[in-house]
Amino acid sequence: MPKISKTGKEMPASPIRKLVPYAEQAKKNGVKVYHLNIGQPDIETPQIGLDVLKKYNGKVVEYCHSAGLESYRRALSKYYDSIGIDINYNQIMVTFGGSEGLIYTLMSCFDEGDEMIVPEPFYTNYNSFACMAGVKIVPIKSTFESGFALPPISEFEKKITPKTKGILISNPNNPTGYLYSMQELLQIKELALKYDLYVIADEVYRDFCYDGTRHISVMQIAGLENHAILIDSTSKRYSECGIRVGWVATKNQDVLDTIMKFAQARLSPPYFGQLIGMASIDTDPEYFKEVRAEYVKRRNCLINGLNKIPGVHSPMPKGSFYTMAKLPIDDSEIFCRWMLETFRYENQTVMMAPAAGFYATPGLGRDEVRLAYVINTNDLNAALRCLEEGLKEYPGNTLNKI
Amino acid sequence: MPKISKTGKEMPASPIRKLVPYAEQAKKNGVKVYHLNIGQPDIETPQIGLDVLKKYNGKVVEYCHSAGLESYRRALSKYYDSIGIDINYNQIMVTFGGSEGLIYTLMSCFDEGDEMIVPEPFYTNYNSFACMAGVKIVPIKSTFESGFALPPISEFEKKITPKTKGILISNPNNPTGYLYSMQELLQIKELALKYDLYVIADEVYRDFCYDGTRHISVMQIAGLENHAILIDSTSKRYSECGIRVGWVATKNQDVLDTIMKFAQARLSPPYFGQLIGMASIDTDPEYFKEVRAEYVKRRNCLINGLNKIPGVHSPMPKGSFYTMAKLPIDDSEIFCRWMLETFRYENQTVMMAPAAGFYATPGLGRDEVRLAYVINTNDLNAALRCLEEGLKEYPGNTLNKI
Repeated sequence: MPKISKTGKEMPASPIRKLVPYAEQAKKNGVKVYHLNIGQPDIETPQIGLDVLKKYNGKVVEYCHSAGLESYRRALSKYYDSIGIDINYNQIMVTFGGSEGLIYTLMSCFDEGDEMIVPEPFYTNYNSFACMAGVKIVPIKSTFESGFALPPISEFEKKITPKTKGILISNPNNPTGYLYSMQELLQIKELALKYDLYVIADEVYRDFCYDGTRHISVMQIAGLENHAILIDSTSKRYSECGIRVGWVATKNQDVLDTIMKFAQARLSPPYFGQLIGMASIDTDPEYFKEVRAEYVKRRNCLINGLNKIPGVHSPMPKGSFYTMAKLPIDDSEIFCRWMLETFRYENQTVMMAPAAGFYATPGLGRDEVRLAYVINTNDLNAALRCLEEGLKEYPGNTLNKI
Repeated sequence: MPKISKTGKEMPASPIRKLVPYAEQAKKNGVKVYHLNIGQPDIETPQIGLDVLKKYNGKVVEYCHSAGLESYRRALSKYYDSIGIDINYNQIMVTFGGSEGLIYTLMSCFDEGDEMIVPEPFYTNYNSFACMAGVKIVPIKSTFESGFALPPISEFEKKITPKTKGILISNPNNPTGYLYSMQELLQIKELALKYDLYVIADEVYRDFCYDGTRHISVMQIAGLENHAILIDSTSKRYSECGIRVGWVATKNQDVLDTIMKFAQARLSPPYFGQLIGMASIDTDPEYFKEVRAEYVKRRNCLINGLNKIPGVHSPMPKGSFYTMAKLPIDDSEIFCRWMLETFRYENQTVMMAPAAGFYATPGLGRDEVRLAYVINTNDLNAALRCLEEGLKEYPGNTLNKI
């Protein structure tokens, strides 16, 4: 039997997926499992987006332009204009979710073995995309204690080698919920210009910023035009994860031209997803107000609840719908599995994402989990109760040992 | 400004795309351009597929399983069963069109620098997918004279090196229209088992076989279970190019497990496309009968018409909706551009795909073009007339020189 490729072998299997069989088994046994492990929101997709499906009366579902429907790209350009970001329609390449956008960005910008600095913890699939493109991720640690602020620029400089070709940030951050300030972005700019680095910003959670904070896009940093690459998506903004529509935007024409070659090879992004995405741009601003209010309520419920549990700490995130929590445990992979496999509280339990998968440095995150607050507050409170009781019973609880 | 990657630079730009600006300019000048250059059928999408859009009443468009909706994969398994192909639902990975399926297949099976033998001429985007996966395509020539039959196995054996890890065929073939016989497939099997090679078969044109011929799938070759990988798609079968739904099927569990890691990284294939694809499986068999009858009519019209033009030869294809034609010209790239830029017949012209882009061996295909018969016979006849008149006027016509 022929062998699997090196890339295939090195592709990391999702750390959450390992837990899925245990969650499935628990459910088969009639146990209620609260999912704090995934970023699949329960928020309703705007009806204005879904309505286009009912109105469709085309006869042939044809390929569209490899960069995406021009009408959609023009609508996206207007959307950016409305939030103070200047992007022309022909500076946008529509892709299969932000994922494909990031894959082609890495393939276009990085050579085999080139290095990309990424503050850790980071979205685990960056590892997979880097693996596909042959890029080496060089992590720099953002600390729990600082609430996961940007590490000092001196730390970045220590990691720079002749192979360093870019920085990747997620803003607001998945998994930490951290929102980068203008000052932090300007520091990144300075570094990028000094060493001629691409700055790739994954801003798919842009609309989820709380407490009156304002999101600043990498595309709003003057002087960074040739270095800035924006990854964006409809998935979280409009709760349209399943339509698989995202895009890359940049003012760097070489990057656009190169991504276009990848886009042409796979012919076209999905037509109906684009129709839905385009219609969703006109979603009533009230929708976002309500969604944000709901997330603030959930966030406060989760983070306050977490910090009340003995030995548990979680910083209050300013954006996205994730938080990292430090738990009084020996190993979060073992703990998360134990919660699904063994622990029951009133026939309920909680599924969480062990944090080690979000760190590239071995050994980090072993006493941390990532939690998503994408379920309602009643369920969050029940999940918190399960977690509290679970920690009490867990044999590897480090408080118990003291 | 940071540099573009080697992969990005090596990604071939589509040979047809180079002609697009000339076609657009011609249209702007009011010229009627007949498109024989692309495989975008004008056949209507089955209404049964599109009807699901009107019926959709979900509230949240969620991610689905990374391998595709289980219900869809089970329906595909039944579809295969109905045409005598045994594939279990969990041996199918739904992807963004056949393209993504092929990309992840190559990334899963081949190491950087591994070689894949492909009979040429072949679908140009194979070059792009191979480039993404770092695979070296080793072409072996199928000849115009044999109607593009499988080259003798001795030719394959001459090309085998320690780096050879697979064979890729398109069956029925794009661009030649050739349909492989059982005998040819058994020869490939023997070779694959002898040298332990993957056999990847792109069978997206399976439903387009003519003159009572029967398509034989790579999945029907007994003994090849661990080596055979099938690439399939809804795009051509149901004229659903824009929904971007294809899949990989294989009985090789290692390959499935590895492709799954790629699939998980990009989360999920498109939801609405899958709904449409699933409903389309129940398309009335009459639809295909009519479609095939229409294509036979178009094929006969085009190929008979071509062979009547002095100096033009095209073999009668048994499948797909393409044909290769040899023209009495110096260089098809120059000729195709000249037809768009300069030539007009009653204010009309024809767009064709220069064949050099379908060959990997430099210099081949220079007097050939690929033509798609995806327009109605009236338009085909008009296009043939333009081609005949164009050839008469073309300064690089080699007959004129004799």
